This record gives sequence, structure tokens and C-alpha cells, in this order.
Amino acid sequence: MTRVEPRRPGGFAEFLPGEQIAFNAMLTTIRDTYEKYGYAPLDTPDLERTEVLLAKGGGETEQQVYSFTREGSKTSLTLRYDLTVPLARYVAEHESDLTFPFRRYHIGKVHRAERQQKGRFREFYQCDIDVIGSESPLVDAEFPAIINEIFESFNFGEFTIRLNNRMILTGFFEGLGLRDVSAEVLRVIDKIDKLSGEAFVSELSALGLNDMHIARVHDFIGIRGSNSEILEKLKTIDIPSEQYHQGVAKLAAVIDALQAMGIPESRYCVDLRIARGLDYYTSTVYETTLDEYPDVGSVCSGGRYDNLADNYTKTELPGVGISIGLSRLFAKLREIPGLISVDRQSPANVIVVPISSDQNKYAIEVSALLRGAAISTVLFADDVAMKKKFRYADKMGFAYVVIVGDDEVQAGTVSLKDMETGDAKTVSKQDLIARLK
Amino acid sequence: MTRVEPRRPGGFAEFLPGEQIAFNAMLTTIRDTYEKYGYAPLDTPDLERTEVLLAKGGGETEQQVYSFTREGSKTSLTLRYDLTVPLARYVAEHESDLTFPFRRYHIGKVHRAERQQKGRFREFYQCDIDVIGSESPLVDAEFPAIINEIFESFNFGEFTIRLNNRMILTGFFEGLGLRDVSAEVLRVIDKIDKLSGEAFVSELSALGLNDMHIARVHDFIGIRGSNSEILEKLKTIDIPSEQYHQGVAKLAAVIDALQAMGIPESRYCVDLRIARGLDYYTSTVYETTLDEYPDVGSVCSGGRYDNLADNYTKTELPGVGISIGLSRLFAKLREIPGLISVDRQSPANVIVVPISSDQNKYAIEVSALLRGAAISTVLFADDVAMKKKFRYADKMGFAYVVIVGDDEVQAGTVSLKDMETGDAKTVSKQDLIARLK
Repeated sequence: MTRVEPRRPGGFAEFLPGEQIAFNAMLTTIRDTYEKYGYAPLDTPDLERTEVLLAKGGGETEQQVYSFTREGSKTSLTLRYDLTVPLARYVAEHESDLTFPFRRYHIGKVHRAERQQKGRFREFYQCDIDVIGSESPLVDAEFPAIINEIFESFNFGEFTIRLNNRMILTGFFEGLGLRDVSAEVLRVIDKIDKLSGEAFVSELSALGLNDMHIARVHDFIGIRGSNSEILEKLKTIDIPSEQYHQGVAKLAAVIDALQAMGIPESRYCVDLRIARGLDYYTSTVYETTLDEYPDVGSVCSGGRYDNLADNYTKTELPGVGISIGLSRLFAKLREIPGLISVDRQSPANVIVVPISSDQNKYAIEVSALLRGAAISTVLFADDVAMKKKFRYADKMGFAYVVIVGDDEVQAGTVSLKDMETGDAKTVSKQDLIARLK
Repeated sequence: MTRVEPRRPGGFAEFLPGEQIAFNAMLTTIRDTYEKYGYAPLDTPDLERTEVLLAKGGGETEQQVYSFTREGSKTSLTLRYDLTVPLARYVAEHESDLTFPFRRYHIGKVHRAERQQKGRFREFYQCDIDVIGSESPLVDAEFPAIINEIFESFNFGEFTIRLNNRMILTGFFEGLGLRDVSAEVLRVIDKIDKLSGEAFVSELSALGLNDMHIARVHDFIGIRGSNSEILEKLKTIDIPSEQYHQGVAKLAAVIDALQAMGIPESRYCVDLRIARGLDYYTSTVYETTLDEYPDVGSVCSGGRYDNLADNYTKTELPGVGISIGLSRLFAKLREIPGLISVDRQSPANVIVVPISSDQNKYAIEVSALLRGAAISTVLFADDVAMKKKFRYADKMGFAYVVIVGDDEVQAGTVSLKDMETGDAKTVSKQDLIARLK
């Protein structure tokens, strides 16, 4: 028989079981937290009509999509490259059936035909969460609270959620008479961490800013202090821009809400350098970094936008949301020694092992008993040497092995072996459940 | 601005929030049960190399795949059309890194460019679970146990898991001297429910069976009784076929294991008419039907196969598994009035509503308190009329509304309204948690 080499397309990653279990644990944390804040799950097709997905047109995106027209069909289809455009299409399509404010989360794969390089995937998971149809700053405050819960659960050390409001920056530029280059200046600020001081000055000069402008921008985004100190400072700066003052008020409202929620102050800070490159954002913006692993970059970012779906509907749909690029985050964290354990090959902690097939029936009963008590359990079913059974239990990373031989069957007990300590003791079936719970 | 009509490609379904919540609840039941039996999660790319995915070649499948080659690329890619071929590729590719027996489940979308018709989707969820590398009948018995747990949780009334072993049928045909047409006879039996008695006879005649053969086949697959009665009968039938007797012994071992697990006898039965159309299966086969909704057809089926990955590796990989076609099942059950509730638009049961923005801070604190107690909670954030707030709570299907006004803030209490009964009472914050838990 002719065999085909079993390999994947380049840039398409997949996990071994231990990695998948660790990845899914992170995904479950994200999903459960999103749901705890009352966000409804959403799922959209992997494929969309190309004219719908690329309605905005232009840009790098269009070069990177997987588009095709099936033989015999007239419809060009494209694999979604993010979860935001499908959300816009969804909300516009189902507008009359949805209740607003519409809170939804979407965890799913997206595809981009990127140039192949380390840390870049052509298929990856996004974990998006948005509220559509509310302009309340209390809603903006939900996202730092959600990020805080998720990253606290992840246990990758301390982290910092950086907050800003684009209206403050654009209002400030407007006040300086720089409205026409506002978007370009934002983009320079967005990449400030990658620029030398000189490059920063020369890029702003190139946009037509004079030395005084540059100095004021530099001083402004350099404002430091506690959140309330920064806000106090911002309130007192004399800038002739309504937008600026609205932005400051909104940011202050978000910070107030975070305080009321009891989020530790050390976890979030106003950072006037956070601009976010995308034109899309219009108000609050977020970025999150891991304090101990700054090289990972922003692990969760997002912001508020005025109009989600203007390519599809005339209804104005303001919204705010964040996204966690879980595949990329996981890949980066996996490289850090000792951070993510992939030892567990099974969601079960327990394996039940009959010494010989004579104890199969009893072993089945014990397994059923454990599962009935909601304890995830594997039954070792094959009739092989005891040594092989233990090797399997060891390789799979089970924490406990429940051994049953003739003596145990007679006495109605089991022998419980703790694989970490190596201790084995005889316990009754009832004690077994209590110990494994 | 030019707008594009927001619509999906034909045959690509998506849900409104209430439906998605109901669908996800089923999906969670399936996933949790699969994990309770120690099956590890697996995820493979949505796209595979066409030469890998279609290595088997031929058949209807090849006509129904979404294949394409991206401009500038030499690799033809295909969206996976099931989860079994990717499993075969995965196991062959990672053979040396996996520990066998390998238990995995995979819940994911697959794509088939089927002719569009009611109840047919071009994108749908499969929920597959398999064990690779064990020949023990105890493993075969895990699947009826898993099906039993899942469908018991679903609460769609009683159901019946039908079991057979193909070796019994093929051995029986072999004993009658019909080995050469065994696969064809199996296929006729597989569709017996759709055939009249006459059509059944004429199809078998066309395969070269004489009247005596047809009568014996008819009597054989018509054997009825309790599971142990059928097995007793099967053991006593005098058939000169080793395969037949091995099949009977395996089926008996599966039934014994199910009894030891305590699965109610009413839930599973030996049914010699279960053949499963696919050539693929070689031993145990399963089908499941809902007793009250027989028109839904088999809601979960599967079986044992000798060799999973012979297109990719010379290693023999026997396995056994089942699949739930959740999208199709959900669509069918949704049509039955009163069976699936889609009233809940939010995973939260509770919404906290401040009477005016003066109580925002307190409302935020109460929401944080509830979430801290793992109670999924929405905070109503917009400053609109009270009537609008209640209309929202009602449309979203929240079970409880927690109202906070000035009096509540003063007293440190809340007003808890049960939306079903309409009762409202003032409770302390601590009582609130206890009541909502």
C-alpha cells in the first residue's frame, strides 16, 4: 500500500496531550471569567463571504487572507482573520434580534497566511470579549477587572494593566493646534518603546511639529505618579479642547470604578504613552504586560470604538472590548523554563489498575464509583504485565494509582498509591473517595 | 459610504445568544463527561494538506471538500471534513511522542460542501472520542457508559444504546458460505429500517443469497430478548466460524462490563441489525436512539476498527470510538416544541441595577461581591429610565434583579427581585450571596 507522509501544512501548530491540557486550562480560565461577568458565548462561521469580510478593504490584511472560490460556485469565501469583523457582521445581520447592550465573548480560531517565522502562526486562537451598545465608562472598567481576574488565576506573577484614553491624546494635540496630524502622532507614540529619543524627535519633526510642540508632547506623555496624582495633573493642565477634558473625565470614571471593584491599585495604571496603533479606537485603550516577562509584550489589549459595523449598517454601534491572543501567549510562555507544566497527559488524576483480569469486574466497579463521585478516572483495561501497567501510569502522570488484587476484592478495599511520595496504603472504597476528592 | 449586506454564505449556520447558550450547555456536558473518563483534549488544524486528508481517496467525500491552493503557494489545502482522518494523521505523525493506549476527545468544526437542504450544514460540530492502541473489550464498554451519562444529563427522556459486533454478523455469513458478499449483506442490513420486507429479500437475492440463506439471515437478525437471553441464544447457535464465536465472546464481555458499571439495563441492548454502513468498522458497533424522538435517528454512533492510520504508517493502530454530531442533533431537537429552552440570553442569572447613577459605586461593589462568590453577574451601567432597565432585565431572561437605591446604600442592603414570582425583598449583602448561591 502507498503511504502518505503524515505532516501538517507549514505554520499550522498543534499540541501533544500535555500541552493541550495546559493550553485548555488557560482557555477555561478565560471562558469562565468572561461568563462570570455575564458575557454570552458567540460562535460565527469559520468562513465568511469575501465581500463581507473584506468590506473595509485595503491594508495588509487583504494580502494575508485565505480566500477561494469552490469549483462550480460563484461565491468567494474567506477564512476569518480576526473575530471583530465577524462580530460586526453578526450584530448588523441580527440587529433586530439582539438586546443591547450586547455582551458577548468569542473564543475561536482565525487564519492569516503570514510569512513563516518563529512565534508566528497561520492558525491561532483569539479570545475576544466586547460590549456593544453602551457608552458607560462603567463598562470600560469591566475589562481591567476581567483581565485582573484572568491573569491572577494564570499565576504568571504580577502584571500591569495600562490604561489611557485616546480622547486625552487627540484633545491634547488639538489644543496644540495639531489636529491634522493627530493620527500620525498617535502612531509614533504607540511605538515609543522601540524608538530612541532622537528617532522620536525626528519622527515628530517630520510630521511638522516644532520644538515647543515636541517638548510639550514629550512632557505630557511622560507624566508619572499614582493614578490619582496623574488624574489631578491632567485636570489642571490648561488645554483648550473639550475632547481633552471629556477624555480625562472618562478615564477618571474608569479609575473610580476600578477602585470601587477592589482591584489592587498595583495592577493598573494610567499610562499616557498607550495609544494603540489601530485607527479604530476612539476612547479608552488598554494594554497589559507581565511584570516578570516584559519581552512577551502586551498579553491583552483593546479599547473603545465609536462605530463597530459601519460597513454593514447605518446604525451607530459603539463598543468596547479586549482580546487575548492565546496561541501566541502560550507559545511565548512555554519557552520560559518552569512556567507551564505539561506533565499531565490525562485530565484524570487517578488510574484504577487490576492486578490481573480476574479483578476486572471489581476494578470496573471501583472506577464507576469514582466517576459517580465526579472524580475523573481511567481504568487500565489491557491484560499485560504489572510492570507495563505501572510504566503507563508513570508516563501519563497520574497522581494516584488504585490497585486491586484478590485481597482487595475479598476485603472490599483498594490499595491506593500516591505516585509522588510512592506511599501505598489499603483503604476502604468510601475512604478512597474522600481521599481523592 | 458604500455598505455591504451583512450575510453569511449559504449552509453556514450561527446562533442567537439564547440558542448558543443552550448549545454550549450540551457541548459542556459532552466535554465534561469525556474528561471524567480520562480522555485528553485534542485539537488539530482546521486545514490539512490535501494529499494527506484525501490519502484514502475516492468516494463521496472527495466531491464535498473545500480544497484550494493559495496564490503563490504550491500546497493544496483542504478544510477537514471529519475528525477521524486528522486523528489518524496526528497519531501517525506523533506516534513516538504518544503513550498508548491513547485516549483522546476532539470537539471541533468540520466542513462539507454538501448540497444545501434543510437539516444539512456545510459547517458543523463533531464531538469525537476514541481510544487508540487497546483491544480490550473493557474499553469498548466505556462508550455506552459515556453515552449513558451524557444523554442522562441532557434530559431528553429515555434512550437506547444498541450494540452489536460485526464479527458476529460476518462470522455468521462466513458460516453460511457467504464470505464473498459479506460487506454487501452488511450494507443491506444497515438500512433494514428503510426497506420493506420484499425489498429486503430482493436485495439479498440480488447478492446471490438463496431462500434458505435469506430465511436464516432474517431469523438471525430478528433474535429478540433480554441481553443475556440473546447472548445465550447466540452461544448455542451452531456456526462453523471462529470469527462468529470470538465476536459473541467480545460482545458478552462488553455486556458484562456494562452490568458491572451499573448502567441501567433498560438503556442498552444487543441488536443484531446494527451493522453500520462504513467498511471501516470491524468489531463492536454502537448506535443510540432517543425513545421519544425516534425520527431524530441515531444521535451517537461508532465502533471498533482494526487499523486507524494505515494510510500514514505501517504500525497497526486498533481503536474504538464514538461521535456525536452535535450541530445536527441540536437542530433536530430545537424543532421539538418545549424541549430546548433558549430564554436565557446571558450566562449570568443576576443583574445589579442602580436606581440612578448616584448608586453606581455601591452597585459596582455589590457586583464585585457577587462575582467574588463565583456568582455570574451583570451590572447595568447605563444611565437610563428605570423602566428601560427592567425591560432589559426581562428580555435578557435574568432570574434575579438586585436593585440598589439610596435607602439600600444607607442601610448597606439590597432589594432582591425574583423575576419569576415578582417578589421583592430587602436583604443584607451576606444574605444575598447565600440566596443566590
